[in-house]
Amino acid sequence: MNLKEIYIDNSATTRPFDEIIESLVTEMRTGYGNPSSLHSKGLESEKILKHSKQVVAGSLGVSSGEIFFTSGGTESNNIALQGYVKANEKRLGCLVTSEIEHPSVLDIFKYFQKIGFTVYYLPVDNTGIIRINQLEKICQKEKVSLVSTMHVNNEIGSVQPIEDIIRLKRQYEFVLHVDAVQSYCKLKLSSFAKSIDFLSFSGHKIHALKGVGALYIKKGVRIEPLYYGGGQEDGIRPGTENVSGIWSLGEAVEIFEKAGQQALVKTRELKEYFIGRVLDEITDTGINGTIDNQKSAPHIANIWFKGIPAEVMLHALEGKGVFVSTGSACSSRKKTVSHVLKAMGIKDELAGCSVRFSLSILNTKEELDYVVQALKECIRFLRR
Amino acid sequence: MNLKEIYIDNSATTRPFDEIIESLVTEMRTGYGNPSSLHSKGLESEKILKHSKQVVAGSLGVSSGEIFFTSGGTESNNIALQGYVKANEKRLGCLVTSEIEHPSVLDIFKYFQKIGFTVYYLPVDNTGIIRINQLEKICQKEKVSLVSTMHVNNEIGSVQPIEDIIRLKRQYEFVLHVDAVQSYCKLKLSSFAKSIDFLSFSGHKIHALKGVGALYIKKGVRIEPLYYGGGQEDGIRPGTENVSGIWSLGEAVEIFEKAGQQALVKTRELKEYFIGRVLDEITDTGINGTIDNQKSAPHIANIWFKGIPAEVMLHALEGKGVFVSTGSACSSRKKTVSHVLKAMGIKDELAGCSVRFSLSILNTKEELDYVVQALKECIRFLRR
Repeated sequence: MNLKEIYIDNSATTRPFDEIIESLVTEMRTGYGNPSSLHSKGLESEKILKHSKQVVAGSLGVSSGEIFFTSGGTESNNIALQGYVKANEKRLGCLVTSEIEHPSVLDIFKYFQKIGFTVYYLPVDNTGIIRINQLEKICQKEKVSLVSTMHVNNEIGSVQPIEDIIRLKRQYEFVLHVDAVQSYCKLKLSSFAKSIDFLSFSGHKIHALKGVGALYIKKGVRIEPLYYGGGQEDGIRPGTENVSGIWSLGEAVEIFEKAGQQALVKTRELKEYFIGRVLDEITDTGINGTIDNQKSAPHIANIWFKGIPAEVMLHALEGKGVFVSTGSACSSRKKTVSHVLKAMGIKDELAGCSVRFSLSILNTKEELDYVVQALKECIRFLRR
Repeated sequence: MNLKEIYIDNSATTRPFDEIIESLVTEMRTGYGNPSSLHSKGLESEKILKHSKQVVAGSLGVSSGEIFFTSGGTESNNIALQGYVKANEKRLGCLVTSEIEHPSVLDIFKYFQKIGFTVYYLPVDNTGIIRINQLEKICQKEKVSLVSTMHVNNEIGSVQPIEDIIRLKRQYEFVLHVDAVQSYCKLKLSSFAKSIDFLSFSGHKIHALKGVGALYIKKGVRIEPLYYGGGQEDGIRPGTENVSGIWSLGEAVEIFEKAGQQALVKTRELKEYFIGRVLDEITDTGINGTIDNQKSAPHIANIWFKGIPAEVMLHALEGKGVFVSTGSACSSRKKTVSHVLKAMGIKDELAGCSVRFSLSILNTKEELDYVVQALKECIRFLRR
């Protein structure tokens, strides 16, 4: 086999679409105005912001006045959650999230605990999904003011039952934040986006640039800004807008919208094909989570290889030009077992041997065939 | 005259250097890894962060562990000021800033007032410079915990007496934040950076991308992060790093370092040449602030044209391909008189006729000759 470069770590970050890179050059050369400037150079940049806002809003079936650009998913989560608590501090009941959230949500809730709030962390079952009746029980017992859950888990791809949570939201009237960083442009959100109060998005997970994200805030939901400044983004997120980044985000969403459902079906088929071959052709291996269509994202497969520490496998694959990860990029430097796999009840022994393969619509069957072959060769060598 | 495109609004934002645009393409195509990823694609991106950090630190004569990347000047100001107050809330005395700060500083201090702190806003003289003895008087009277001042004012280019403030800082032991967004790469900071606790920088004011900035935090100064998340930037600013933006920031600083003092001398000469011609050749006009070398930045000229509302002048110049501004881009949509010119004691009548011309090292004498000619033609028409 020749050394290629096969990037299967798209939940960590993605390669910007070629179309975006090419047109960014023009954008940076001529469209460099400050959107707040009164002259046409400024207005051109402002038009880019408006256009991208319409594209993002359109993809969700919400109004563009409800979309705010941020510097990424982490900032979107912080503005929504901290901003909501800051605005409503005195009349809040308890706050609920799950055990398998991204650090940017988990650590915010730890902060809420520190400043005196009661916080519940919902456990998950062995497929990485919360049990809706456990949320309901908390709602019956206490006043729940805010619930935050991710849509798709970044490590194992499990899909939370958002529609069930929305049903409870209607009944118990809590505010709902959904971290949609891993599901945006991979699952259809427009059917329920309007029923949610806050949705967080990131550009670099969908082939746009790093350093840009978006936050949907349902009209009428009150938050207090965390930063102060020049009033950009209706004061929700002041600071000169990252025009190139925002532009790339709008372009990426348009590319996904054009590719349509078909592209995502293809991604899911590729994932299933890959998992099928790995489980069939390699011994002592298995998946974490489920491949159930309704309960798993089209692009993430988390697979354990008995006896081979994940980091060893990662570097062995890297030696063959294949880039994967041991879990969340954000936690990869911490030498601890994944809090997600732990919450699912997976034993440390297997959790430590689990590798995340995350696809994008740019990956091909040929690439995955190469990865299966590379896996076999690595395992033959490593299990010797 | 032919219609050209002459951009003299570089304090609002700058055009990214061509060298940066060109190499960004390669960076985005191949260096797209997540710096937190364990594989070589991640390490490559991490190297970019480290390199840029060294470049910025080197330009200031500080250590690279004291540099933190942010999404821009507004975020740097917020993290420094709010982060310091959050970490030290209970033992703080009064807080001091000036009347002519950027909204991202002024509005933070208004917030500090709202939550109960005593805040002093230092007035400025008619050249836009604080009187150091007024700060000293406050220090003699009260415990001052935090002073925040910009280095160069964004509207008129006045330079604050940072070394005098540092002298007071040593005597009265307050923490000092300097918003250096408009001075970085335009004035030498390395001679006193180490004596300051926080310095804020922005990428897009120095021909790097929008959406990136930096914050210098002197070793040992304690702040509490405002955002929670994956621990990036030592937890000071979590969220996947804006690698392209950070890369562009490092490149831009390197270009300025190579261009050296000479380039800035040239910019100042151009500014003086431009002001000289305008004052000589156009009647009923004058500058706001001073052109004293020690008290004014090399690149900003704020000039009034009696009887011509600034916005009218802006659009008339725009009709000839010249882009300028009526003051701060961040406040340009607000139809109020500049708080900076007001603080300097300039009458509304002249303040409303004041235009900011802000140069960069990319502007040429030929361009300024064109601008003078355009100004004359506009004024002949507008004053008719």
